[in-house]
Formats: sequence, C-alpha cells, structure tokens
Amino acid sequence: MQTTALPTSPADVRQLIREGRLVHPTAGFAPGHVQANLAILPRDMAFDFLLFCQRNPKPCPLLEVIEAGEVEPVEYAPGADIRTDVPLYRVYEHGEMTAEVEDISDFWRGDLVSFLLGCSFSFETAMLRAGIPLKHIDQDKNVSMFITNIPAASAGEFSGPMVVSMRAIKREQVVRAVQVTSRFPATHGAPIHVGDPEVIGIGDLARPDFGDPTDFEDGEVPVFWACGVTPQAAAMTTKPPLMITHAPGHMFVTDVKDEDLAVL
Amino acid sequence: MQTTALPTSPADVRQLIREGRLVHPTAGFAPGHVQANLAILPRDMAFDFLLFCQRNPKPCPLLEVIEAGEVEPVEYAPGADIRTDVPLYRVYEHGEMTAEVEDISDFWRGDLVSFLLGCSFSFETAMLRAGIPLKHIDQDKNVSMFITNIPAASAGEFSGPMVVSMRAIKREQVVRAVQVTSRFPATHGAPIHVGDPEVIGIGDLARPDFGDPTDFEDGEVPVFWACGVTPQAAAMTTKPPLMITHAPGHMFVTDVKDEDLAVL
Repeated sequence: MQTTALPTSPADVRQLIREGRLVHPTAGFAPGHVQANLAILPRDMAFDFLLFCQRNPKPCPLLEVIEAGEVEPVEYAPGADIRTDVPLYRVYEHGEMTAEVEDISDFWRGDLVSFLLGCSFSFETAMLRAGIPLKHIDQDKNVSMFITNIPAASAGEFSGPMVVSMRAIKREQVVRAVQVTSRFPATHGAPIHVGDPEVIGIGDLARPDFGDPTDFEDGEVPVFWACGVTPQAAAMTTKPPLMITHAPGHMFVTDVKDEDLAVL
Repeated sequence: MQTTALPTSPADVRQLIREGRLVHPTAGFAPGHVQANLAILPRDMAFDFLLFCQRNPKPCPLLEVIEAGEVEPVEYAPGADIRTDVPLYRVYEHGEMTAEVEDISDFWRGDLVSFLLGCSFSFETAMLRAGIPLKHIDQDKNVSMFITNIPAASAGEFSGPMVVSMRAIKREQVVRAVQVTSRFPATHGAPIHVGDPEVIGIGDLARPDFGDPTDFEDGEVPVFWACGVTPQAAAMTTKPPLMITHAPGHMFVTDVKDEDLAVL
C-alpha cells in the first residue's frame, strides 16, 4: 500500500474502507481527525454499558451512541455506515471470537446499539505536536498496556479492572505531558498515575498484558493513561450473546478534529 | 434561620435536611462542595434519559446515576439517602406537578433510577474566587434563564431546546470568566455564547423565561452558560407517568469538592 497516496479527508478514507480497499490499521489516516473505538451490543445490555461508560469516563470516554438499529453516526461522521466503514471487525458470541470480517452487514440486527469511544491517537497527536516523542510510534510498535489493580466502577453486569496504556516519558517532559493530555478528557485525558508501577498493581513493566514491551532509557519515567481496552474487557466478562468491536488498531475514522475535543 | 450556625460538613448538612430541620434553598451550604440537580425516572425511560444527558454534556453534566431501586449515591455521598436528603422535592405525574414534599419515601418504587447532575453553583464559586462579581448573588436574586433556539440533541423520546443561564460580566473579565468556567466541564463548563442574545434566539434580556431579570450596567456583556433546566424540561415534554426532581434551588449537597471536578 502506498500510504503517501492516501486521501487526507476522513470521508474519502472511509469510502476506501467501505470498498474493501484499505484493510489496514488506521494510525496516521486522516491526520488530525478523531479516531474511535467501537463496541456494538444488543439493546437489552445497552443501559448498563452506557452507565458503565458514564461511571468510568477516563477509560471509557463516550463520543457517540448510535441508537438501536441505526447505523449512521450523525454527530461524528454524517453519511457513514457503522457496518462497513471500519477496516476490520471482530465478532464475539458468548465471549468467544467467532469471526473477523471487513463488513458486519450479515450480522446486523435491529436491536444493536453502537458505542463510539475516544482513542488515545488524539492525545498522542497533541503530545507529538508539543515535542514529546512517543517511542512506540517511532519504533512502529504497539503501545504497552497493563491490567491494573484499580477496579473500574461497575454498572449492572459490567465490571472489571481498569486497563492502562503506558508511555516512557523523559523526566523533564512529564509535566508537559500531563498538561497536554489534560486538554483532551474525551480521549482518556490526563494520566491516572506517574511513576512506580507497583502502586497500581503492575509487577513487571517488561511484560505488558497487551501490546509490545517498551525499552526504557535513563531519565525516562513510566506514565499511565486509562485505556479503551477497559470497556471491551468489561463487556466481555459478561459473555454477551453478541458483541461486535473493531479489530485492534483498526479504528473508525471520524470527521471531527482532535482539536475540537480540547477543553481549553 | 441562623445560617452562621450551619454546619460546614456536607454529611452534617444532609443530616439536618433528613430530619426536616433545613427546608431551605441550599446556596451557600457546605461551601466548596458540589451541589447537584436531581431527576428520578422509571427504569423504562432511563436508557433514553441517560443517552440524552450523554449527548448534551454541557446542559446535562451527569455526576452519578443511582441504579433502579437503589437510594445511596455511593460516589458522591456515601451513606446518604436520595429519598430524604434533599430539602424539598417536586413530584410530577404525567407532566403535572402533583406534590411538593420534604421526603419521597411514600413515592418510592423499585424501578426508579436517580440521576444527579452538575449545578452552576460549582463554577460560580470558582468565578467569585477569581474576583468576578455575580450580581444575582449580591442582590439575592435567582439567575436569569432563557429558552434558546439551539436544539438539544434528542435521544429516544427526549428532545427540546437548550436552556441557558445568563450572567452580566464586565467586558474586561469576559476572558477570565471563560477560562475559569472551562475548568469545570462537569458543572456546565465554558459559556456557549458571549454577547448578542438574538443570535441564540433570545428576544428580550429583560424578560427571562425562568428566574429574575438582571440589571445591566455600562460595560457589561451578557454571557450564556448551558443550564440544568434543559434535561428537566426535556423529560417533562414526554409527560412521564412519574418523575421526581428537587425543588428549584433546593439541591442535593454532596461530599465531593468543587475543585475535585476541575480538569486543570
């Protein structure tokens, strides 16, 4: 794939995805635009999942909820179709992954509610612009993610630990990293912890629960942000009859600009 | 009532309220602590109302949702009882107010979901501390509120216009007022409009839809914030079989500090 020839408009990117011509992780697609995590659940679980997100705004920052049977994210991507415009989906039945597909039209039902959640790509863009290097991007690796000992607030059937992503930040840039990400509460916001991993129940930074390990250099501090894996993990513990998500890294590209989500 | 003798702890204030000894608007009670709007609805309307709040975070900043039949706000006021700890409640049946009571135990049902929403008292405290005078407080009046021509995002049966509160701010303090209130997205956050009322469909500043008129002086600019009347008004348009709210000004006093809600 010649990424240099990629269109920069979110709608054009989604059109290529819809046509099945862009089955690829979306990092760097439509730069400056918000990308979203996707979770689709049957309506009878929707209230509890919405409440779980409301109670855990840092790991589960809701951007938009598409009501039962509707497929268009009217706020974040008017004209898009949530069944076709994500490059790769995962279908889970009773907690087991039963399909990985480029189009979920065959799985669609009138009682499915779609949740779009903020993703750390937005605040990473802001950090890079602020001159804070991100090694997992430079090294083309996945960010390190860990299951903490911090319980998420439960709601109905949904509960579980908070999952965090970790970035190695130079000591002299820690304060700036806190400031920059604080501007984006809709995409996980400020860190939940700086420094000692053991305090939040992480035994070994070299062995992440998800993603790739991070090489630390002298003078770098581990900084932890709430992670969008949290809601998916919580939903999965209930083993819903049907749940559909994006495949990791294959996000929904929206029309909204990262900066439009900044609070200051 | 000798307000000088009032306890400063939220729990002590709630205890007096529970005992029926403080049937009074709560402005100034337990200074520095978050006060909340209350809306109670049957569970079968709860998903749509929760979604309405999620879609309209500025007028409807959800602080806590107490699940069906539960009465304790475990996050914002552990040990409290939502049926007794608000000084005055209003009970609406099919859109008509049928009772104003100090205790809703007689109306309680196992299917009632309680919503606590942020209130502008929090950001007003911050403005006063920043040296921005608030005339309605100095004059012991209610803030002016207006129905705008800005539609709130609808959700299921819930829809309606955004309601705003208006404060007359000295021209040289407008920027500071924006900055200070931006820190509090959980209590309406930054203004939605500065200046010309006609732009948002307000014909006559001297005739507010709710609250008292405001006297303007030279060099003062009208500044508009999203208002917590919005969700109640939207809920009311659906004429639910039962809806219970706090009486205006008689808020639920929580244990959380205003500053704990600040994003920066």
